[in-house]
Amino acid sequence: MTTETSLTDSALRGWKLNIDRTGKFFGALSEEQLLQEIAPGKNRLIYLWGHLTAINDALLPLLGLGQRLHPELDAMFVSNPDRSLKKPLSGEELKRVWDETNDALWMAFSRLSATEWLQKHTAVSEEDFKQEPYRNRFTILLGRTAHLAYHFGQAKLAEHRT
Amino acid sequence: MTTETSLTDSALRGWKLNIDRTGKFFGALSEEQLLQEIAPGKNRLIYLWGHLTAINDALLPLLGLGQRLHPELDAMFVSNPDRSLKKPLSGEELKRVWDETNDALWMAFSRLSATEWLQKHTAVSEEDFKQEPYRNRFTILLGRTAHLAYHFGQAKLAEHRT
Repeated sequence: MTTETSLTDSALRGWKLNIDRTGKFFGALSEEQLLQEIAPGKNRLIYLWGHLTAINDALLPLLGLGQRLHPELDAMFVSNPDRSLKKPLSGEELKRVWDETNDALWMAFSRLSATEWLQKHTAVSEEDFKQEPYRNRFTILLGRTAHLAYHFGQAKLAEHRT
Repeated sequence: MTTETSLTDSALRGWKLNIDRTGKFFGALSEEQLLQEIAPGKNRLIYLWGHLTAINDALLPLLGLGQRLHPELDAMFVSNPDRSLKKPLSGEELKRVWDETNDALWMAFSRLSATEWLQKHTAVSEEDFKQEPYRNRFTILLGRTAHLAYHFGQAKLAEHRT
């Protein structure tokens, strides 16, 4: 492995590790447990899981890897707060979408070379990218890995109450 | 910037961003607020901050960058649960230690080349490293960045109650 491939490999391992532990945690909860709040008055576990699924799904167009698979998630788990929609997905449905989205991302991630990871993401203009070359796919990958960990930490707080 | 330097630069930016937002959050809390729990029956904010400081301080020897500056933090914030020691640090003292530790890490991090980031960390043997070359400094950096985000997400839950 070259130096640059080793570096992207570390980042991909970090992504996968966070995806796996998050999916394992939520996937083991019952429908009833998923409706519990992470702390009194805070979001429910199902909302956190859906939120992470939606944000990950949005990586497909953001990284120029394809169209979103589940844009309908945004109304349920991103643009509206928890409990504002009557019928979000069940845990069983969400697990399917979570797996589908992460499989698609993993397939696409595995194909990118180090040079491609350093290309601009789609939310930055060519002009801005010249000034701020760190606004690339790789930075997004690292940021979204931290985003996963941020909410996984919150979800884990509910563990001994579920 | 070469491809490999751009990749490590992205990771260092991710680290710095997480350090800065975490330090800003905790640094703005009063001594009284730091004694509040992140959720009922859970760790107090001061414990989370101290825990992150201790784990970061331990990066110095783990990455072969020097000796620990504050090994005394472990008894307060790692090896014992919250509330087991009578007198942990005050917020003011902890802020000083947090800044000192992170300044030392940042200085050392900035000097490492991409090749050096891929060298083994000190908790893996030469033999194991041959089989598992991903057990390098860079993987540790990414993992500790996620660790920061994990607990920062928990600390943020207390925000509207402090």
